[in-house]
Parts: sequence; C-alpha cells; structure tokens
Amino acid sequence: MSISKKTIAEAADRIRDYIHCTPALSSTLINEITGAEIHFKCENFQKAGAFKGRGAHNVLFSLSDSEIRNGVITHSSGNHAGALALAAKTRGTKAYIIMPETAPAVKVAAVKAYGGEITFCKPTLEARESTLKEAQKIHHPLEVHPYNDERIIAGQATAAKEFLEDYSDLDILLAPVGGGGLLSGTALSANYFSPSTEVIAAEPKGADDAYRSFKSGEFVPSENPRTIADGLLTSLGSITFPIIKDLVSDILTVEEETTIRAMKLIWERMKIVVEPSSAVPLAAVLENPSRFRGKKTGIILSGGNVDLNTLPWNKE
Amino acid sequence: MSISKKTIAEAADRIRDYIHCTPALSSTLINEITGAEIHFKCENFQKAGAFKGRGAHNVLFSLSDSEIRNGVITHSSGNHAGALALAAKTRGTKAYIIMPETAPAVKVAAVKAYGGEITFCKPTLEARESTLKEAQKIHHPLEVHPYNDERIIAGQATAAKEFLEDYSDLDILLAPVGGGGLLSGTALSANYFSPSTEVIAAEPKGADDAYRSFKSGEFVPSENPRTIADGLLTSLGSITFPIIKDLVSDILTVEEETTIRAMKLIWERMKIVVEPSSAVPLAAVLENPSRFRGKKTGIILSGGNVDLNTLPWNKE
Repeated sequence: MSISKKTIAEAADRIRDYIHCTPALSSTLINEITGAEIHFKCENFQKAGAFKGRGAHNVLFSLSDSEIRNGVITHSSGNHAGALALAAKTRGTKAYIIMPETAPAVKVAAVKAYGGEITFCKPTLEARESTLKEAQKIHHPLEVHPYNDERIIAGQATAAKEFLEDYSDLDILLAPVGGGGLLSGTALSANYFSPSTEVIAAEPKGADDAYRSFKSGEFVPSENPRTIADGLLTSLGSITFPIIKDLVSDILTVEEETTIRAMKLIWERMKIVVEPSSAVPLAAVLENPSRFRGKKTGIILSGGNVDLNTLPWNKE
Repeated sequence: MSISKKTIAEAADRIRDYIHCTPALSSTLINEITGAEIHFKCENFQKAGAFKGRGAHNVLFSLSDSEIRNGVITHSSGNHAGALALAAKTRGTKAYIIMPETAPAVKVAAVKAYGGEITFCKPTLEARESTLKEAQKIHHPLEVHPYNDERIIAGQATAAKEFLEDYSDLDILLAPVGGGGLLSGTALSANYFSPSTEVIAAEPKGADDAYRSFKSGEFVPSENPRTIADGLLTSLGSITFPIIKDLVSDILTVEEETTIRAMKLIWERMKIVVEPSSAVPLAAVLENPSRFRGKKTGIILSGGNVDLNTLPWNKE
C-alpha cells in the first residue's frame, strides 16, 4: 500500500466526527514584522491538544473490533501518548502507554485524563522498547507507532488537506519535523491537493537529524538532541524519510532563542497557547526573512500542550 | 439621547470594517467540570487585545473631522488606552494617553505600538485628572471616557449582539464588571436582541463596589480595590449604573484563588491567552455550580493583554 490521494480523503472522512476542523488565524503585527502573509493552522486547538489526534483516530477507526480487542500500546513521552489514549477511549478500547519517568507532568496528566494505563520506564529507547515488549506479553495489545505508519501519516495529512481547502493559493506551507509524520503527511497533501505549494520543514539546530538526513540523502539518527521543542526529538522513519526526500523542497534549522522569541510572539500577539515545537516554523521565517517576504505562507501550529508553570522565557 | 436598539445596530455597522467579529469557543472538559454548556466569546482575539477596541472605534468614527482635529485624550492604565490609541491611528488622528507610572509594561508597549503619545503621572485619580487637564490646555484634544459614555457603551454592546446572533438561545450571558461599560452594553443587547437571556455579572470580592452598589441600589465607589483582575478596579459610572440596575439580574462575587484557577483552566484546556479579568465569569460558574448546571451559558472573555513574565500561578 502507498498513501494515495484517496487514502488521505478516506482518512479525512473516517475521523471527521471525532476531531476538530481547526481554524486558521493571522496577525497583522506578525505580518508586519516578517513581511510575509502568514496563516496559522491551529492544531493546538485539536482534540488532545495536538495534530497527533488525527493519526491516532485514523488508526483506531481503521481497525476491526477483533484487532483492537486487546487494546493498543505505544511508547511515547509526548502528544502521541495522549492522542492514542483519547482515540482508544473514543473507539471503546484500552490504551497502554509506556512513558519515560522524565515525561512532562502535563503529558502524563493528559494520558490519565483519557483513561490510558501508564507504565513508567527509564528514559532510554532501550528501556522503552523492552518495557513495551513486557507489557505486550501480558495484555497482547496492538502496537501503534507514533509516526512510521501509513495510517498515522494519512491521518496527519488531513491537517494540510483542510488547510489547503481553505487557502488554496498558499505559496509555501511550513511544518516542523521530528519523526516526520506531520511533515510527510503535509507534503503528500500539498502534492495531491495544491501541487504549486512549496513544502518547507523547520527543525531546531540542536536536533537537526532530519536536516542532515535530507541534505546527505542518507538516514542520520537523532543522537543526544538538545532543544526545548520536546516534540521534535525523534529520528525520521523508514516510511516518512523517503516521502520527505521526494516531496519536501527544503529543511531550515533554527536557533533556540529564535524559537523562544517566536513562541512568545505567538502568545502575545495571537493570544493563543502553543508549545515550543509549534513555534519552530515561525522561527524559520524570522531567521530567513527574504525567503518568505511577500509570500502567502501557511504554518501548521502542531500543538499546545505546555507546562504553564515553566515557560521558556521565565527560565533564567 | 439614550441607547436604543438602533444605536447599537448603527454602532455595529460603523465599526464593522475596523474590528474583528470574534469567534466563540467551547471546551468539553470545562463543560464536564461545570455541568453547564458554556460558549466563550473570544474578545481576547479582538483588535488591541480586548473588547475596548469596539467602543473606542465607535467613538472615533462617530466624530466629525473637525471634532477630532486636535486628537483625543484619556487617562487609563489599561486596555482603553491601547484601544483608543489604535482607533485614533485608524481614524487618522492623534491619541494623548495619561498613564500612571505603575501601568503594566505590556499595556504601555501597546499604546506606543499604536502611536499613542504617553504622559506618565502618579498613580492617583487626582494626578491622572490634573495631568489630563494640563495636557488638554496644550493640545486641546477631545476627552474620551473609558466607559461612562453612550457611544462607548453602544460599541461594547456589539460584542453581545454578535454573540447572540450566533447563539440566540443562551439561557444566561455572563460578563465581568469594572466600570460597567461592557456589562451595561451586554445587558442592553440582551434586552433588545434576546430578551429571554438572563444577564449576570461577575466581580472579584476584593473589588466588589458594583456588587454593593447593585445590592443597595445606591452608588458605592471603588476604594482601595485589591484583585489581580486589573481591568475591574474602577467604579461604576452615572450612565452605566442605571442601565445595570435596570437590566442585570444579579452580580456574583468571586475569590481570587478561583479566578486564578479559572484562568489556568482556560489557558490549559482552551489553549488561549486571557487576562485575569476575563476569567472572573468562569470563576463565578465554578463557585455557583447549581446556578449554571444544564444551562446554555455565554461568557464574554474580555481581553488577553497579560504580562507573560509574571503569571499569577507562578507568583509564589
């Protein structure tokens, strides 16, 4: 199977009743600062607070009753965990979530609020995978990967599809890149629904594995990433990387300070709460003004799950 | 002149091109917590970040070119200052703003961003009034009161008018009360456009002059108010109080802790930035659950201008 135009359209129909068709907002002042015409797609308003709700619901509602009989399982410290717990609850099954003991309190609380069953483990990939395997032996749930899954990618692609239906003439569409689920879905939707729109990714300099993979053409894993954009720490996947190589025109990397400045701009000027990962694309515009000046630019704000007690501009 | 249905409809037409028709949002979780069906009218997304933009534009665009020849003037530490500066800029005239030297930095920055000319004074009503008189002697601008003005009230009334056009069957409409410009406008619009909707006000216990005026029937001035809801410190006016007495069904006072909790709930669950004054009505619902349970309730979120460096839940 590959992810066709029809696959994405079907995903949109499948999840329509369970997710929000999120609004797009803009700010006169941000347009004045950047010289671009930017429209922000507010996936921070999405169910479970991030675009991840789209892919998770698409998987859960693609599966038969017998396939989900024993529930679903994943390891995640972030928005996929909450999204999968919510989607499982909506579908009437159980979610087992393996979380590193360092996971942000706000994301742990979200999983609990949606009835997910959490098992904590050491914060290493090895511990996460072995803890997941142990839990699978007991409950036999189906594993749902956070991004390297065609149904997840097709679900995330529905955000750009919606966006491009409302703004068919975007010159550029910008998305952040972590594992590449949102980015590959965005690139596919642009390719199918608005081929003249250029798709550009934004990534923190301290977690630039996607940038290095993209530039070299060879997969580079994420090793010891350092960024406040906690949604963008993961490596690309075997399914997401080829799509990105094929359909994304560039990846721009940004400084942490610019991400913090962009995040604060969005909060102050647009009066909305976004998490650091969401601010990385605007940071890319701020650092590369000539590339976006005069361009009708779409930015997908990936999520709004942030600990309000520890905001980056208060961490002195 | 009195503020008729036609006055408010004309104000809506007059300001339509200069302000945002703001969206209404809701939260499944907040509805679960309160047992009510709450719709939030997002005036935090309004031009200049608060409903005050409506009244200010209505005044500026009601005045003739000769009347605004020397600009406009007001004393304000808050959202009226920014709103008047923006409206004057849009109308092509000058705004002189007298601000107490204790005014929040974020509100000073807003006035400057809109080209308002600020004169600072001591933070007393006497100093504000005498500084304003001095400035009037030099520039001869027209004074625009923040709330005790029929054109201001008619402008603020357009928020509830819009809200009731989208939600005609609200059982209750809740607004915060400071000087009473928003509340009296809201009560007038409910009276004219949805007479079956009950209008209730919410006020901090530490600034309960409107409550005491309302209950006694006699004007009680605001003296040494203490609340984080910095938009609700002022006394009712000679025009706003009679309208409130006549058309508002009750005023509920709330504890500071509940306002902080309500504000954090709105940020966390709705992913939007609101200032403390905006959270006072939800605090009233949280403190009086039986009164709102099962009721279709509209809340006007008055504004979103808040200093992101000093959030109330971080002030330990």
